[in-house]
Amino acid sequence: MTVRAAVAGASGYAGGELLRLLLGHPEVEIGAVTGHSNAGQRLGTLQPHLGPLADRELAPTTPEVLAGHDVVFLALPHGQSAAVAEGLGPDVLVVDCGADFRLADAADWTAFYGSPHAGTWPYGLPELPGGRAALAGTKRIAVPGCYPTAVSLALFPAYAAGLAEPEAVIVAASGTSGAGKALKPHLLGSEVIGSMSPYGVGGGHRHTPEMIQNLSAAAGERVGVSFTPTLAPMSRGILATCSAKARPGVDAAAVRGAYVKALAGEPFVRLLPEGQWPATAAVQGCNAVQVQVALDAAAGRIIAISAIDNLTKGTAGGAVQSMNIALGLPEELGLSTIGVAP
Amino acid sequence: MTVRAAVAGASGYAGGELLRLLLGHPEVEIGAVTGHSNAGQRLGTLQPHLGPLADRELAPTTPEVLAGHDVVFLALPHGQSAAVAEGLGPDVLVVDCGADFRLADAADWTAFYGSPHAGTWPYGLPELPGGRAALAGTKRIAVPGCYPTAVSLALFPAYAAGLAEPEAVIVAASGTSGAGKALKPHLLGSEVIGSMSPYGVGGGHRHTPEMIQNLSAAAGERVGVSFTPTLAPMSRGILATCSAKARPGVDAAAVRGAYVKALAGEPFVRLLPEGQWPATAAVQGCNAVQVQVALDAAAGRIIAISAIDNLTKGTAGGAVQSMNIALGLPEELGLSTIGVAP
Amino acid sequence: MTVRAAVAGASGYAGGELLRLLLGHPEVEIGAVTGHSNAGQRLGTLQPHLGPLADRELAPTTPEVLAGHDVVFLALPHGQSAAVAEGLGPDVLVVDCGADFRLADAADWTAFYGSPHAGTWPYGLPELPGGRAALAGTKRIAVPGCYPTAVSLALFPAYAAGLAEPEAVIVAASGTSGAGKALKPHLLGSEVIGSMSPYGVGGGHRHTPEMIQNLSAAAGERVGVSFTPTLAPMSRGILATCSAKARPGVDAAAVRGAYVKALAGEPFVRLLPEGQWPATAAVQGCNAVQVQVALDAAAGRIIAISAIDNLTKGTAGGAVQSMNIALGLPEELGLSTIGVAP
Amino acid sequence: MTVRAAVAGASGYAGGELLRLLLGHPEVEIGAVTGHSNAGQRLGTLQPHLGPLADRELAPTTPEVLAGHDVVFLALPHGQSAAVAEGLGPDVLVVDCGADFRLADAADWTAFYGSPHAGTWPYGLPELPGGRAALAGTKRIAVPGCYPTAVSLALFPAYAAGLAEPEAVIVAASGTSGAGKALKPHLLGSEVIGSMSPYGVGGGHRHTPEMIQNLSAAAGERVGVSFTPTLAPMSRGILATCSAKARPGVDAAAVRGAYVKALAGEPFVRLLPEGQWPATAAVQGCNAVQVQVALDAAAGRIIAISAIDNLTKGTAGGAVQSMNIALGLPEELGLSTIGVAP
Repeated sequence: MTVRAAVAGASGYAGGELLRLLLGHPEVEIGAVTGHSNAGQRLGTLQPHLGPLADRELAPTTPEVLAGHDVVFLALPHGQSAAVAEGLGPDVLVVDCGADFRLADAADWTAFYGSPHAGTWPYGLPELPGGRAALAGTKRIAVPGCYPTAVSLALFPAYAAGLAEPEAVIVAASGTSGAGKALKPHLLGSEVIGSMSPYGVGGGHRHTPEMIQNLSAAAGERVGVSFTPTLAPMSRGILATCSAKARPGVDAAAVRGAYVKALAGEPFVRLLPEGQWPATAAVQGCNAVQVQVALDAAAGRIIAISAIDNLTKGTAGGAVQSMNIALGLPEELGLSTIGVAP
Repeated sequence: MTVRAAVAGASGYAGGELLRLLLGHPEVEIGAVTGHSNAGQRLGTLQPHLGPLADRELAPTTPEVLAGHDVVFLALPHGQSAAVAEGLGPDVLVVDCGADFRLADAADWTAFYGSPHAGTWPYGLPELPGGRAALAGTKRIAVPGCYPTAVSLALFPAYAAGLAEPEAVIVAASGTSGAGKALKPHLLGSEVIGSMSPYGVGGGHRHTPEMIQNLSAAAGERVGVSFTPTLAPMSRGILATCSAKARPGVDAAAVRGAYVKALAGEPFVRLLPEGQWPATAAVQGCNAVQVQVALDAAAGRIIAISAIDNLTKGTAGGAVQSMNIALGLPEELGLSTIGVAP
Repeated sequence: MTVRAAVAGASGYAGGELLRLLLGHPEVEIGAVTGHSNAGQRLGTLQPHLGPLADRELAPTTPEVLAGHDVVFLALPHGQSAAVAEGLGPDVLVVDCGADFRLADAADWTAFYGSPHAGTWPYGLPELPGGRAALAGTKRIAVPGCYPTAVSLALFPAYAAGLAEPEAVIVAASGTSGAGKALKPHLLGSEVIGSMSPYGVGGGHRHTPEMIQNLSAAAGERVGVSFTPTLAPMSRGILATCSAKARPGVDAAAVRGAYVKALAGEPFVRLLPEGQWPATAAVQGCNAVQVQVALDAAAGRIIAISAIDNLTKGTAGGAVQSMNIALGLPEELGLSTIGVAP
Repeated sequence: MTVRAAVAGASGYAGGELLRLLLGHPEVEIGAVTGHSNAGQRLGTLQPHLGPLADRELAPTTPEVLAGHDVVFLALPHGQSAAVAEGLGPDVLVVDCGADFRLADAADWTAFYGSPHAGTWPYGLPELPGGRAALAGTKRIAVPGCYPTAVSLALFPAYAAGLAEPEAVIVAASGTSGAGKALKPHLLGSEVIGSMSPYGVGGGHRHTPEMIQNLSAAAGERVGVSFTPTLAPMSRGILATCSAKARPGVDAAAVRGAYVKALAGEPFVRLLPEGQWPATAAVQGCNAVQVQVALDAAAGRIIAISAIDNLTKGTAGGAVQSMNIALGLPEELGLSTIGVAP
């Protein structure tokens, strides 16, 4: 099977990462690559790391350009995916890397995004309970946010096993590519290098309801989330430090056991040996997730930490993984668990 | 008044920062500078940023060398300060940047350091309730750890005002200089650059009991602490993200009010205007502390975040500030609140 | 003497650094601080590291606002200084951190900047032969470019002593703050971190004629310059690697001797001991210059390398140093040779 | 064909990169992985990014362990390869990533390494004139040094076409991984971050004679080299800025033409479109080389700049590329020209 794939929004970081991965996918042929303000420019200038595509010009993001593909990846600003998807027909697999179709609750959407809810698509995090079944054969995929990917994989085993109280506290550090290529003063190299700073503090980050949705589903009850994202002086990577109070009677063996069981057989998630902790460098450029967990007996909390590459497993790699499942291809095709380190 | 000061352990990062600050202190004259394995080497090689001291040679750390100073700063590996301090006599002001005399509870010390407790000295965090009174005129100062400095200043207002439940969750990111100059593989530039990773997870970090001690004192009851430190790809700076459940009935105005009141008039701590968040770059190289606080109403938590330079306010700057108080000098002498940014 | 100083262009990196240094200058009182598009905003937001000025609002850059100061520092885009300076009167010391008045040759100006030449002011690099005499008592100062500062201090001793052929090859690495706060895609943190790249290759960089001017003056003949600047993943610092063929018969002792002699007594320039090489971290945040030189006998070239902080000695520190001379103040007042490292 | 490959020295950065690439090579099966002081430890600890090999233990580097492989890669400290290679027999392809067999001139070896010359093996830089012919069918390969790879590919077209005078001036910036995993103070993250510094200045770097060898071969006459390496605050990448005087009458078209011709058809080297310059981020983690060249007419110099990943094309990727040629496999097998950026 050769799958013909288009990428809409190919000039940004998510689009570039999609192309990087699709270039290495043995069953994918890259079709249209489109942009908005950059239409007409060459990828050699916009994405100089994509040598084999250097001479490709960005086409405009129109239905005509996107027509005739088996898969269309959308890496667009939020709010734009629905209109583009509508023009593509029900037989095309549409993989949306934006936020538009992630949330099941329309009120959550409106509260955090301030616009009408476009709908809900099957959610592209196969490792969650029921995740693969929801994706098999689907023609529409909502790729999770980068932070929710890291956080959900760190905490769902504890909640699925009923080990943790339904209030999670999460502090995550992200590389700057998570903020995209938008020209904002606080994203300049001079501002970012040598500095750690938080943003969206106090519950305001748009990924919060997505975390609540995932953890609540795993727990079978509503899980509250306190989420603080921070910007770290690196280009890629998310380190998510997550914790919740342990339920009475939970001991370290129960915690370890739940994680071993929940993550067993996962091709991309590796529960590290006890005593070793995740590092974002170890998963850079690949689809791997490193997870570790500990019980802090004195504080009575389960501490679960995960590391991902925000652009790979956190965006484009997760998208390709879900595409593979939807198309009935081997889930690992075109994806690696080998990081580029040091 | 001219104060003659010695620095023991001048080849490390804390020692270098002490010298950097003391060189700019108008009432201090730098006397002996000592080292252990580096004795006999020139500071020009060991600390090439200290131009005015380039030709100074490190003397060995002996009582003879340290004798005859008004102040002796100790920047030694933990466990070594007591012996050196004993040789100095009761009239010399000894400022210990190590951990030896920070903890009041001998059992805590032994549990975390595995050796007999050396004792307890007045604690060098003037901003804490009663902090300045404890330091005035003292001849012995225990300089706080870098993480406890950042965390205590972020959270004590909430606890002193009775706004928060006595269980704090803290995730802090530190620059690599906090780990010192020891040659360890995980501290190599190649490992650190581009990576975030946690360490000492699950309650094991030695700064945990010190945080508990400070927050409990502010709260008037025992405060439990879940503390996760992470290593960030920068050389200096700590960003401490701290939270605790708000007590019933606490609203945003009460939180803001408590912080405004607790931090009013502090020369080095600045509560940022609402909506602005701390960044470590803004306090780089200076003794300033940036603090911000928010109430996450949905999660029911108070989120307090602070940024310091781990070597300045977190170590050497805090030491000089406390020395000023102990000697009756103006507290701000030789210290700056102007960061080196970008 | 208290000098009242204004800073025009206070929202950028040069303006911020000027304010940082002036805040620590014992004879300066900061008057007006102005901006263009940022007028009306608070420095606490624009320059969050300048704690003591947090509540200051930027005024617009008008003659009325800038009137009534002893010194006016201009940190404006090139081409704007002349008009502002004209409005200030001949008795005000105007220190221009821009390029407008650096070049003596109008044709050079037009070739590199494409606009009419505004004129030539005394050049603010006191360490060059005759440099201090040109600045004493002047009311107009052209602050050198950051690269020309680093390069001229590295190479003038060789040329002044007649040791080098008049063709210099220079490759310099600069931190990103040298490119200013302009929002350009290649200056985003995600692009800069982890990457080295050249720009302005092949003679096009506007600092080239300024280097030629300085080195030619030292040599007494025209010195050609091949200059390649590169952008390094750090916020501050310039490392300039400069070389030229040694004239026949020149040996290592002659080279060393010339540098020892030329740099003797300089308060800010330190010729490092043989075998030690400059590092930008060692001069971060201060006005120091580290210089080292070697003769590569096999290649027949003199290699001279300097490290400066591009914002301090390379811009604002150099400006303050020259101001001190012009006003008859001690040259080192308000300036430090102690770097903020690590 | 399935090739069974061993890697000796698998705990270092070169060894880790070899394993990373070999894991993705469709015709290679990884056999023994060995270490010295780390023998007995798991790769999961030593190279946490190599997920699929996490449970592999390092064996000792002995003839018995290395026996029975088709290819043995040596990533050992210099001086150790000859003894290991001798024990492997003439039918095993030995690919030495160390320096031992790179130089043709025994006197050069002894002058720079201070030990007896072990010999000369076919040189693993296929892009040089005659490079592929020398490698076809060979059983011994000397992998080039990282700097000579970058420099030779940047300059050989100019020398092969007779356009440049035989004196090259080279300044190169390298990421810290080029210095290996040795625990040296100047390689600590705290020292490296935020700093640029030179080393081995004045002709002393051991890669100098290798550059002279390659450029002289291309030129047909002895080419002198002035080489200054600098350490940059990034983990990977080399940017080599190389220049030489243009021969009389050489114009920009001739320079461009020579590079177009010399690099045409090269699978890994890309001459960028005019006006675009190399960046190390664009080749991170892949075997691609970006090259650009310009004639600085005013200075009379040809400026050629290349960017590589020092660990990939500069070491392990170059090794695999040469192995492919030696074994008669497609040269690009298992290698990518797609960088991991941003």
